[in-house]
Amino acid sequence: MKTVQSEVRAKAELARAAAGRLAALSTEQKNEALRRMADALTEFQEEIIAANAEDLERGRKSGLTAALLDRLALNEKRIAGMAEGLRQIAELPDPVGDTLEEIRRPNGLLIRKIRVPIGVVGIIYEARPNVTADAAGLCMKTGNATVLRGGSAALSSNGKIVEVLKRALEQTSVPLDAVQLIEDASRSSVDEMLKLNGLLDVIIPRGGQSLIRNVVENATVPVIETGAGICHTYIDESADPEMAARIAVNAKVQRPSVCNAMETLLVHRHFARNHLADLAGRMKEHGVELRGCAETRELVPWAKPATETDYATEYNDLILNVRVVGSVDEAIDHISRYGTMHSECIVTEDAANAEKFLSRVDAAAVFHNASTRFTDGFEFGFGAEIGISTQKLHARGPMGLPALTSTKYVVLGNGQIRE
Amino acid sequence: MKTVQSEVRAKAELARAAAGRLAALSTEQKNEALRRMADALTEFQEEIIAANAEDLERGRKSGLTAALLDRLALNEKRIAGMAEGLRQIAELPDPVGDTLEEIRRPNGLLIRKIRVPIGVVGIIYEARPNVTADAAGLCMKTGNATVLRGGSAALSSNGKIVEVLKRALEQTSVPLDAVQLIEDASRSSVDEMLKLNGLLDVIIPRGGQSLIRNVVENATVPVIETGAGICHTYIDESADPEMAARIAVNAKVQRPSVCNAMETLLVHRHFARNHLADLAGRMKEHGVELRGCAETRELVPWAKPATETDYATEYNDLILNVRVVGSVDEAIDHISRYGTMHSECIVTEDAANAEKFLSRVDAAAVFHNASTRFTDGFEFGFGAEIGISTQKLHARGPMGLPALTSTKYVVLGNGQIRE
Repeated sequence: MKTVQSEVRAKAELARAAAGRLAALSTEQKNEALRRMADALTEFQEEIIAANAEDLERGRKSGLTAALLDRLALNEKRIAGMAEGLRQIAELPDPVGDTLEEIRRPNGLLIRKIRVPIGVVGIIYEARPNVTADAAGLCMKTGNATVLRGGSAALSSNGKIVEVLKRALEQTSVPLDAVQLIEDASRSSVDEMLKLNGLLDVIIPRGGQSLIRNVVENATVPVIETGAGICHTYIDESADPEMAARIAVNAKVQRPSVCNAMETLLVHRHFARNHLADLAGRMKEHGVELRGCAETRELVPWAKPATETDYATEYNDLILNVRVVGSVDEAIDHISRYGTMHSECIVTEDAANAEKFLSRVDAAAVFHNASTRFTDGFEFGFGAEIGISTQKLHARGPMGLPALTSTKYVVLGNGQIRE
Repeated sequence: MKTVQSEVRAKAELARAAAGRLAALSTEQKNEALRRMADALTEFQEEIIAANAEDLERGRKSGLTAALLDRLALNEKRIAGMAEGLRQIAELPDPVGDTLEEIRRPNGLLIRKIRVPIGVVGIIYEARPNVTADAAGLCMKTGNATVLRGGSAALSSNGKIVEVLKRALEQTSVPLDAVQLIEDASRSSVDEMLKLNGLLDVIIPRGGQSLIRNVVENATVPVIETGAGICHTYIDESADPEMAARIAVNAKVQRPSVCNAMETLLVHRHFARNHLADLAGRMKEHGVELRGCAETRELVPWAKPATETDYATEYNDLILNVRVVGSVDEAIDHISRYGTMHSECIVTEDAANAEKFLSRVDAAAVFHNASTRFTDGFEFGFGAEIGISTQKLHARGPMGLPALTSTKYVVLGNGQIRE
């Protein structure tokens, strides 16, 4: 008799057993599998859309918001996008096997540090079925088995996508067990994954703040924390007004729903007196609601008041806090207090202030005179990313394929012993 | 009124507040502090030895074993060793500030990946007072604040060592709060440290298997797992008998108490028939007790029988399991089952078998024709190490100074926005 617990453990054990065989595959074998997976998504798209329709129907009945239903929905175009994502992963260089260091010791030992797969990667995510194909593809390219646990609202879609991917794998060298989907939609399946030390080598949470917090605060399996972004742009006294406005507007409005969008604008007092009213007007034209400190509201009377809670909120929406500060130090202090160490920008023509900001602000990415929206695997030139790490260990910032690898020392001798 | 909880949290907050100032120091400022710390250990060695005498007295009364008392004991020579360790750390290159990658994007953005300190490092260790100075020194060199929680049996020694180190820091640019020692000797102070997400960036456990397991299984703060080593040497059919014996004896007897010493010898059947009796004799000359499989005991009648539990035990002592296998695959399977992914060796003249072993054995360090005893920061040329990581994330194998750093992307633009 299977219990609720046993599905998670049983599938993690299957993934673990498959990991060794997957790790031994050549780049071409893995790329071939990725391309077949892409083809299968297109070939069987009607089945996927039908399964997705079940999820959407259930979602509407259970009162999911329009935004959530939109994220859940699949159509031919979105499936084509998933397939294209897998083909792009196939085109990326394979980091596995790369030699990172080569050390020749005086005793003749040759020590090579080489990239190897991590092993078994757990992914916990929300009801976005595209993540299923994307995460499976990135892990496969790096030789890792995956245990996927997606949001319950996408269960039918995810089940069908994994079924279709496995159909494709049947014609390849990749062991079918390398991709596992947890179908237990209860919270307890997540709880169990978080404690599977020894079976899962790492868990990567992808989603909103509460999902990430639950994983970070409860997992004993190593975690790579991703995502939450309370990002700031600080406009210094000496900033070029036009550049500052362009960068600030871009950071806020180009895609407000994502983690690298700006949530709070910090403005030097002298800049604010001359240019904040104009900048606020440009934000308003883009439909941005402003919440300001007292000084901001003197200059921008239509702004609502900003509270402590506002400064600590990731809106992911067309809402922006604005705070006037007296110096770059005050800006840095504000960021230290409210930031999530994701992406932070200074706009300035003053090299010393730029240097101070870039070195003292503790974040995955710090920008001088460029929009925080550039914190992204593609924009950094890495290609597809598994997420943006906001923690200090293992990987920080956009995580391309190398972030899904570990290393190993290979030591070649001819009889050396230690004296 | 201070509660038990509050000491840990209060000291972690002080460390966190000091971390930013410490991170901003130059290499020379940190080296100056390290040299003064070294001098102070020597200058105040009598105070340290007196404090250590209290610990030893308490330890004798509470029935500590002779081995534990020996690890706890400090004398002039050992203090000189601690001071020398700090001076060596001052001599090592400072990884902080190194540029690891430089990417120029088509839109003109210049992206630099640079090394930065991790922030606040928690170290949980046993009653070895030398670790106090060593860990504080390695963390200081890499710009990290430290929260030290040593074994309760060394509390007086550790308290005095930290007091002496802080006397030295008073004359330097290093904030005194950068080094914190937890004095609450109860288990609850460890439990509290393990959950201090947001205040501690990482915890590194240093000690025996039960200490490490407690940290790994209960911490929600990111952990770098170190140490436990059930290491194997596999002697292949084609091995040079003299080289094989030399490597195996070295891996077992040169320093049996450490994690990279061999615990189980795997021997190919054909090699065993011709050479195992002789090799066993050489082990016996060094006082090694053998525990063998049935086939081993036919060839070495004086060996005791080996059990499943024996194969899963890290003896750290002059005891060795011996098992006869039929192929390199059988050896790899044994290692996958019982190994701790630390250090594994194949002795062979067959290149294909060497290649198979080196690629398929999943361990931090894999050796061909060299003793596993070489898995060590000094032997790899890294200098002092904070431990040997046996996990897959962040760092694997001997952890030199770079393992105590994180990275940050610094992005330099001239007004770039995202389209």
